[in-house]
Amino acid sequence: MSAQIGNDDVHSELGQTTNVWVVIPAGGAGTRLWPLSRAARPKFLLELVGEQSLLQQTVDRLTPFAPPARTLVVCGPSHAAGVARQLPTLPEANILVEPAPRGSGPAIALAAALIARWDPNAVMGSFAADHDVRDETNFVRAIQTAILAAAGGDLVTIGLAPTRPEVGYGYIERTDEVLVSASDRHAYRSARFHEKPDLTRATEYLASGRFLWNAGMFVWRVDAFLAKLSQLQPDLYAAIVHIAAAWGTPEQERITEEAWTNLPTSTIDAGVLEPAAAAGRVAVVPAEFGWSDVGDWHGLGDLIQRDELGNSVRGDLIQAETHNSVVWSDTSRLIALLGLENIVVVDTDDALLVIDRARSQQVRQIVDRLRDLKRHEV
Amino acid sequence: MSAQIGNDDVHSELGQTTNVWVVIPAGGAGTRLWPLSRAARPKFLLELVGEQSLLQQTVDRLTPFAPPARTLVVCGPSHAAGVARQLPTLPEANILVEPAPRGSGPAIALAAALIARWDPNAVMGSFAADHDVRDETNFVRAIQTAILAAAGGDLVTIGLAPTRPEVGYGYIERTDEVLVSASDRHAYRSARFHEKPDLTRATEYLASGRFLWNAGMFVWRVDAFLAKLSQLQPDLYAAIVHIAAAWGTPEQERITEEAWTNLPTSTIDAGVLEPAAAAGRVAVVPAEFGWSDVGDWHGLGDLIQRDELGNSVRGDLIQAETHNSVVWSDTSRLIALLGLENIVVVDTDDALLVIDRARSQQVRQIVDRLRDLKRHEV
Repeated sequence: MSAQIGNDDVHSELGQTTNVWVVIPAGGAGTRLWPLSRAARPKFLLELVGEQSLLQQTVDRLTPFAPPARTLVVCGPSHAAGVARQLPTLPEANILVEPAPRGSGPAIALAAALIARWDPNAVMGSFAADHDVRDETNFVRAIQTAILAAAGGDLVTIGLAPTRPEVGYGYIERTDEVLVSASDRHAYRSARFHEKPDLTRATEYLASGRFLWNAGMFVWRVDAFLAKLSQLQPDLYAAIVHIAAAWGTPEQERITEEAWTNLPTSTIDAGVLEPAAAAGRVAVVPAEFGWSDVGDWHGLGDLIQRDELGNSVRGDLIQAETHNSVVWSDTSRLIALLGLENIVVVDTDDALLVIDRARSQQVRQIVDRLRDLKRHEV
Repeated sequence: MSAQIGNDDVHSELGQTTNVWVVIPAGGAGTRLWPLSRAARPKFLLELVGEQSLLQQTVDRLTPFAPPARTLVVCGPSHAAGVARQLPTLPEANILVEPAPRGSGPAIALAAALIARWDPNAVMGSFAADHDVRDETNFVRAIQTAILAAAGGDLVTIGLAPTRPEVGYGYIERTDEVLVSASDRHAYRSARFHEKPDLTRATEYLASGRFLWNAGMFVWRVDAFLAKLSQLQPDLYAAIVHIAAAWGTPEQERITEEAWTNLPTSTIDAGVLEPAAAAGRVAVVPAEFGWSDVGDWHGLGDLIQRDELGNSVRGDLIQAETHNSVVWSDTSRLIALLGLENIVVVDTDDALLVIDRARSQQVRQIVDRLRDLKRHEV
């Protein structure tokens, strides 16, 4: 495998020696998109942008790298049926059902261990199930560069060039050391992972040009990843290798349940990437491809075509003197708005949300309250 | 009948010589309370304040003056059944069904003509079906004073002492000429009726102490009223006397339809009271009894007990940092609000309204739009 191949040749070149596998951890509920997203109907299964669910769009976006046979979705028991129905071409065995949520660390590690068993020389990429990408061409090019960079055994992340001083994301700080170049794209040695900053720090990050958003997209050789994992989280490594060995045998369920339920919850970032970056073994590919994590109603509003008054509307709306608002209806009811500015209205069969658009992040608090109250609308 | 009797004796004294009849024109839809009020479910039939509808409360409030046998409700064909069900003790013959709406003038005139046929010496009071009164004791005393004042043949109105420079009501300007006193209450000769003023004028009215809100409450001897009507609106007078003569006969429907449908629409204020006031034959009893016309969502919010954040809530609400808002739910759905101020949210099965509370008057415009669009939600 060569680091000098052209962008368009990467996949075919890799195909000869190395298979790319795609892993899609489908975990989060998308709490901040309540009341549309629910525990039983999580964000990745919803048609929020376009005619397909975010999960379907994620799989489609990655078909240049992996066919359904090399695509794995990791999800919880209550979402397996939804995933299976939405992705009819995905083999059933490629839906990995976690017995219980343990965070992104165990989910991605289990997928890596299974891929390593089936295809030891594989490169895998992990991509969140519920993000939106506008520029698929640039997305594909960034992933191609990451695959090239992964050949040397580094753990490669995609770092999104920040467009605002966002305090809601973690950041990846890159060095100037170029690991791999493909056309005008580079993979840099990354220096450090940074937690969600305050606004002052986020503004400094934005100005520096060396800080990138951590969008939870990772590419690596499975052997290199598992070697790092065995060193950094030996208990997790032992558990997932044990489970992977039993996978597909009559013992799968018993062993998975035993080994999995004892695992502590951990994230792939804190458990592997941050210590690996500190040890100098993480690379980052800076990219811009119109990315959004579709994280809250404010952000989702930005992804929907606005009308001439700046309103983003899905539903049967009559309005007067209402601007820059987001209206989402999951019912056939008429919604009438008058004299409002920067409001979000979300209408579902059993719950109605009306908020100041600037408070979109705080929808989580409402859901927490509902959970405390044991309300069925969660 | 004496003008010197005490407040508590008025009814029993009057009872010996003069019956009081109560007329309740139940016309308006209460458009500004959409989507709760509808053409088919008008404001007066709704339980907006307390456990009973505004119509039921209006009838109850007037029982000190008239039993059901002397209470008439004038309504449209589509509301007759609702009125009959809500007022089970009202004789069926006391529900006067207008074939078509022609305004308050013909509605009240027809009731007066019927009362005059059945009880020529009667005094009648006319009261809107959809207003709220908080202080029933003061209400009763004001009406007692008005009944005394009506004995001399004047058309008597109740004038509410204004509490704010309201531009949404008409005003009655009183003179200093006292017609009748009962305890500390007076009926004054009124000087003029004034249309809805602009804010400058409304502020002057408030400061003057001589301008009172016209709340559409009238008391008069039916013979005196009909004499005025025959002089001021001879065609209307002829029509309603013709209808009243046929009422209860096999000819009632035919004659009512013929005579009624040709009537022009008119209000009792413009058609009778304003010219009668100009001729010096209208009196006004100033009163304060916690009156509201329950005209819009802002006003209705003021009538509902507020919580510690100033929110007036009917429904299943979860809120955070939301103040001075009005929430009304006609469904069992959960309503979640976050970070809002001075908002009105009204939730019904087929329509949802969210507005800036200060724009409550403009709900009428939304309903007009819906009517133009021939939407069923009207």
